[in-house]
Amino acid sequence: MRVASATGIPAGTLPDSSLHPFIAERLRGVVREFEAELSSPHAPVSRLCRHVERYRGKMLRPTIAIVSGVAAGGSHAVGARHERLGAVLELIHMATLVHDDILDDADVRRGGATVNAEHGVEAAVLLGDYLISSAFHLCSRIGTPSLNEELGRVTSDLCAGELLQQAARDRLDLSEPELEQILRLKTGVLIGAAARTGAREAGASDGVVEAMDRFGTGVGIAFQMQDDVLDLVGSEEAVGKSVGRDLAKGKLTMPVVFARARASNADRASLDRAIQSHDGGATLELVKRSGGLEAARQLATDHVERARAELGRLPASEARDLLDAMALEAIQRTR
Amino acid sequence: MRVASATGIPAGTLPDSSLHPFIAERLRGVVREFEAELSSPHAPVSRLCRHVERYRGKMLRPTIAIVSGVAAGGSHAVGARHERLGAVLELIHMATLVHDDILDDADVRRGGATVNAEHGVEAAVLLGDYLISSAFHLCSRIGTPSLNEELGRVTSDLCAGELLQQAARDRLDLSEPELEQILRLKTGVLIGAAARTGAREAGASDGVVEAMDRFGTGVGIAFQMQDDVLDLVGSEEAVGKSVGRDLAKGKLTMPVVFARARASNADRASLDRAIQSHDGGATLELVKRSGGLEAARQLATDHVERARAELGRLPASEARDLLDAMALEAIQRTR
Repeated sequence: MRVASATGIPAGTLPDSSLHPFIAERLRGVVREFEAELSSPHAPVSRLCRHVERYRGKMLRPTIAIVSGVAAGGSHAVGARHERLGAVLELIHMATLVHDDILDDADVRRGGATVNAEHGVEAAVLLGDYLISSAFHLCSRIGTPSLNEELGRVTSDLCAGELLQQAARDRLDLSEPELEQILRLKTGVLIGAAARTGAREAGASDGVVEAMDRFGTGVGIAFQMQDDVLDLVGSEEAVGKSVGRDLAKGKLTMPVVFARARASNADRASLDRAIQSHDGGATLELVKRSGGLEAARQLATDHVERARAELGRLPASEARDLLDAMALEAIQRTR
Repeated sequence: MRVASATGIPAGTLPDSSLHPFIAERLRGVVREFEAELSSPHAPVSRLCRHVERYRGKMLRPTIAIVSGVAAGGSHAVGARHERLGAVLELIHMATLVHDDILDDADVRRGGATVNAEHGVEAAVLLGDYLISSAFHLCSRIGTPSLNEELGRVTSDLCAGELLQQAARDRLDLSEPELEQILRLKTGVLIGAAARTGAREAGASDGVVEAMDRFGTGVGIAFQMQDDVLDLVGSEEAVGKSVGRDLAKGKLTMPVVFARARASNADRASLDRAIQSHDGGATLELVKRSGGLEAARQLATDHVERARAELGRLPASEARDLLDAMALEAIQRTR
């Protein structure tokens, strides 16, 4: 990953590609748009917005939009509009993180204090609202009016996904299709929108745009499933957030849902007791024994393979190879 | 107010006018747009959205947009677009109420349980987000792309106003200009936007559009000041929300800020002690003695008089008379 770190893209955040210098340049533009949109004459507002910088990680969604644009229309078709689009996608994502941390009562995100932990729930509610507003404001300045309707639907889906997840809390009988629907709404639709809008803004045909939507949605669902696997088996240090918290908050994840469906009656009863008493160690053991981890990994792999197949609609290029590598990385990463 | 109740507009919510049947018809359209936008295939989402119905009160913002449109362009210029615009304004307002009730830890709104009290803070955070998203989604379908940028800026201002208010909590030295800025951002800009966009969508000239913006902003600020006066002197029954809560949450309102500026040194020290110990009775006494209530009422009256003067840009009409009466009502109401 030497190439990456030499270009400004943090090492290990993106599979190697000769496109890194181009992507890094566009991502700097994304950050400029992001920061300009959040600049405020009001000190309490700008102070809180600075906290958001700490939340910004790999910028996966802007990167997907940029690389999808290059893959669909060539690098000459990817400039200022994609930078603004990337900033809008990242603002939406940041808003969901800030509000998710309230819902999860989380103290730590990416090794630092969450907004709610450092500034209180009230400030976190308002900061999330400010980020959503800023996203829509900036979106209206891209110059593609239909993007507002499209991303309005996406953010409604994000909220619906979170509401469904809230309603599913402590429901041991949550089914695999129900959970997949939640993952699709919570994570799939925004990454799908990144791939789709990135390709469309670069002039892609409708067929390619739809294929990119399915690509991004599938990668997003797989990404979230891998997160859930890591939440169960990973250490706090590796994933950078409180581990086993999903379980502690009564959120069933795919490995657990699969384990319950596959376990013997006795094991299922033990698993339910372990879940209800928030016993992470016993839960992990029983999920492993029932094949829940493998089944979840297999489903994530299926999503990624279907996503990769969608890339066949694109001409061969380095950008397409990079999308392919990013899809694989979604399930191969260990943090 | 018999006319009003015969037309479907709740008695006492709008000054008498022969326009009531027309306004009531448009408001029914607003409600249709509002409900259609919030309809969701997901049961937990639609269940929460039904709770929002209870929050809906006078529909002041849609009404201002409709009457401003009629005043600027005649009733033939006010139809489906204004209904959709009205629904967008009401969705934004509902989102702020749902999130405000989290910030204020409020249990009661308009005589019923708040979303946070009945469904929890988490559901209230998500419902507010869903309402904002829905507002932007619906806004993009009005057919005036610039509205998205305009209302994006408005919602950012709303958040900034709330953040400034949060930052000002427990600051006894809050100045009158600082508080007026908060009231402008929290309440003025959205009502200003209702008047401005309502007029513009009916074909008003730039000069009239700007005058209507100043009209709505001034009425909004006065409306909020009257709320603050009522919060201090009113009974829980009359204002339909917990009284004196602003003080209990460390929020200084205009009557208090004026009282502190005008009080003798001894009275100011007593007032500060009363505020800090959340002694509503003693605070009210000292605010009255220092002339804080009268000063706040006078400032609200000044705003309303300046707002009414802006109406001189409009041709004489029943709609203009109604706007004039609504401006007066903002400060004359007792609930």
